[in-house]
Amino acid sequence: MNSATTTESVAEYMRAVGQRARRAARVIGRAESGVKDTALLAIAATLESQATALRTENQRDLQAGRAAGLNDALLDRLQLTPARIIAMAQGLREIAALPDPVGEIEALSYRPSGIQVGRMRVPLGVIGIIYESRPNVTADAAGLCLKAGNATILRGGSEAIHSNRAIAACIRSGLSHAGLPADVVQLVATTDRTAVGELIRMDEYVDVVVPRGGKGLIERIARESRVPVIKHLDGVCHVYIDDQANLDKATAIAINAKTHRYGVCNAMETLLVAAAVAEDILPQLAECYNERGVELRGCERTRDLIVARAASEDDWRAEYLAPVLAIRIVDDMAQAIEHIETYGSHHTDVIVTENYTRARQFLREVDSSSVMVNASSRFADGFEYGLGAEIGISTDKLHARGPVGLEGLTTRKYIVLGDGQVRV
Amino acid sequence: MNSATTTESVAEYMRAVGQRARRAARVIGRAESGVKDTALLAIAATLESQATALRTENQRDLQAGRAAGLNDALLDRLQLTPARIIAMAQGLREIAALPDPVGEIEALSYRPSGIQVGRMRVPLGVIGIIYESRPNVTADAAGLCLKAGNATILRGGSEAIHSNRAIAACIRSGLSHAGLPADVVQLVATTDRTAVGELIRMDEYVDVVVPRGGKGLIERIARESRVPVIKHLDGVCHVYIDDQANLDKATAIAINAKTHRYGVCNAMETLLVAAAVAEDILPQLAECYNERGVELRGCERTRDLIVARAASEDDWRAEYLAPVLAIRIVDDMAQAIEHIETYGSHHTDVIVTENYTRARQFLREVDSSSVMVNASSRFADGFEYGLGAEIGISTDKLHARGPVGLEGLTTRKYIVLGDGQVRV
Repeated sequence: MNSATTTESVAEYMRAVGQRARRAARVIGRAESGVKDTALLAIAATLESQATALRTENQRDLQAGRAAGLNDALLDRLQLTPARIIAMAQGLREIAALPDPVGEIEALSYRPSGIQVGRMRVPLGVIGIIYESRPNVTADAAGLCLKAGNATILRGGSEAIHSNRAIAACIRSGLSHAGLPADVVQLVATTDRTAVGELIRMDEYVDVVVPRGGKGLIERIARESRVPVIKHLDGVCHVYIDDQANLDKATAIAINAKTHRYGVCNAMETLLVAAAVAEDILPQLAECYNERGVELRGCERTRDLIVARAASEDDWRAEYLAPVLAIRIVDDMAQAIEHIETYGSHHTDVIVTENYTRARQFLREVDSSSVMVNASSRFADGFEYGLGAEIGISTDKLHARGPVGLEGLTTRKYIVLGDGQVRV
Repeated sequence: MNSATTTESVAEYMRAVGQRARRAARVIGRAESGVKDTALLAIAATLESQATALRTENQRDLQAGRAAGLNDALLDRLQLTPARIIAMAQGLREIAALPDPVGEIEALSYRPSGIQVGRMRVPLGVIGIIYESRPNVTADAAGLCLKAGNATILRGGSEAIHSNRAIAACIRSGLSHAGLPADVVQLVATTDRTAVGELIRMDEYVDVVVPRGGKGLIERIARESRVPVIKHLDGVCHVYIDDQANLDKATAIAINAKTHRYGVCNAMETLLVAAAVAEDILPQLAECYNERGVELRGCERTRDLIVARAASEDDWRAEYLAPVLAIRIVDDMAQAIEHIETYGSHHTDVIVTENYTRARQFLREVDSSSVMVNASSRFADGFEYGLGAEIGISTDKLHARGPVGLEGLTTRKYIVLGDGQVRV
């Protein structure tokens, strides 16, 4: 479909993709677990057997990327190494091993009228995935959506088009091997930018859109989409060290939450410390951060105790995704919660305390997708939570909140079993 | 705020309403069950004690409505009779008696890392309700949202403004009685139309919008809203009478689903009959419908058996909300499902059959918010399903599907309990 150069023909092409996806969704939505798992395993095997071909196509993207002047970080994300191809295949095998959520009936209870009422978990239908340079998303996202019984329309970045096409060919071959329609997973073949605009407006063919990429991309899609969006915006995560914290646990958690990985959404960006223990813990913490090359920005009280740049209002709202940490000393937990609610992004927030009542209150009152007691914010992750793979971490409140796994890619319908009952 | 005549001042006013709602949401979100129930019971008592005042204000709306030439049906919906005031109060007492969903933790399981992970049900935050002439929605919607721990911004129809203000005053008095901020429930004081536009765009203050009214209103709001919308569009509901149906049950269900009430979303609009039993059941059914004054529109095969107008393509898509029924004879269940998926609105669909395998298949394959075996579509209702009161019936797939009660007005956040764990 490289010939689709006019906006009109892109629109037509996308609508055809949508219609095929809708038809395929009805087949995959009814497919038995065994058939879906056979497809996932066949895709995994095909990816491995086609590793050389995948790398050849990937080289084309890398060469074009170098010619276009992409930086090293982007080129690294774009690269399909043998290890990454094996990891893609292994990811699909892990998805195959997960329990099938589709058709699950949680409870079925009798009502006074004599009918039985319950809810059955069912696929969402057609899912559009919009993503950037990492080609492994093609296999990961398609695999998760397939297991959850959905058809998928994948729209990858133009810089990865050859890699994505090669991976999509493996996916379609695996689907056919299992007797499923290849259209269960479609890669948008054109790199025309207007295709995204069409995808997010075809609400008759697409049930939900999951954008994966930078905040700008996600905000634009959320603003313009007519289709519901599962979105992942910032992670401005906090660790609050209470005056009744065990300081060994607090130190370990504060170091891990900031320095385990810097560029991730569940890394701590602001450390809040109760005034009563600040003198006991901040100097040694500052030393650890200094050793690791973390730049510190603090409130005035913090700067009375340790060397740090002055934090501005912007620092409290910043998602650094870098070795930078904002530190504020607060009077008590109430002020910590107030800070989190004012400046946080409702992603993941942690209290370190040995006090039962405060732990309970923090859990209840902090309005974030993950709220933790005495654990590193880095645990906010689908694998760590036991969901298996995740399609992303939702910062929305409706539908799915926090790590989104198979359950977030399904919905529940009511089922009613009767014996001829009518309403009186 | 009747002075708000310019668009700018309406925008300012609405933002102030939003800010107050956000603040109130934090208080009501943390309120204990007993306090919320005390407020609900106090509001109920106030509504009853203020019945005369409510009726006086309602008379002002009725007089204005008559002067404006509202038709009898609209005037009836607008009226607050003593019975309706008691019903409002009773509805609030029933909401008070429901279990509090907030804070519920469904499961908490240990992960290999040693952390415990679970999900806690929490309020959505601020809910905007946009509704039309029936003033009782003011109390019903506010009560449900309050119990679920949310702050509410109510925007009723201008034709009911005096009644709504009087009810809102009772609500605010009940909230104060329980020691809760009156701003937990705010009625938009201006009847300026631009207020709705502001409400659905204040995504920093409003977490979800629930429009209640005609399809046109709901579609417009869904299209223009920046806030997520829980919406209720058409109910084109089907009953399919299988060739292995018990014909007594089929007759009872087909009559009840169509004639129990006409103007409701869960009424049957199209009857599908398996060809093998059409001759046995359609003539007697037609007689029952004729007795009740139901106009029949049939496919050709139907018209070979009974007197009916010819159904057009439009009839298969019609939500009549009236004593009109479309009838189609199908070859088998597969064709019935095909019809439902092609023309239906995914609201509520019924199979009547004694065949186990077909019942199971219909339940799995029909993609509607309620799918039923041997029961009238009229059961698709929050009370009948045991949810207690409902805020509406969602035709969305994400978040809430089908009748939306307290659970649909909440979400779940992850909670993690650790003992100093860090990620390795």
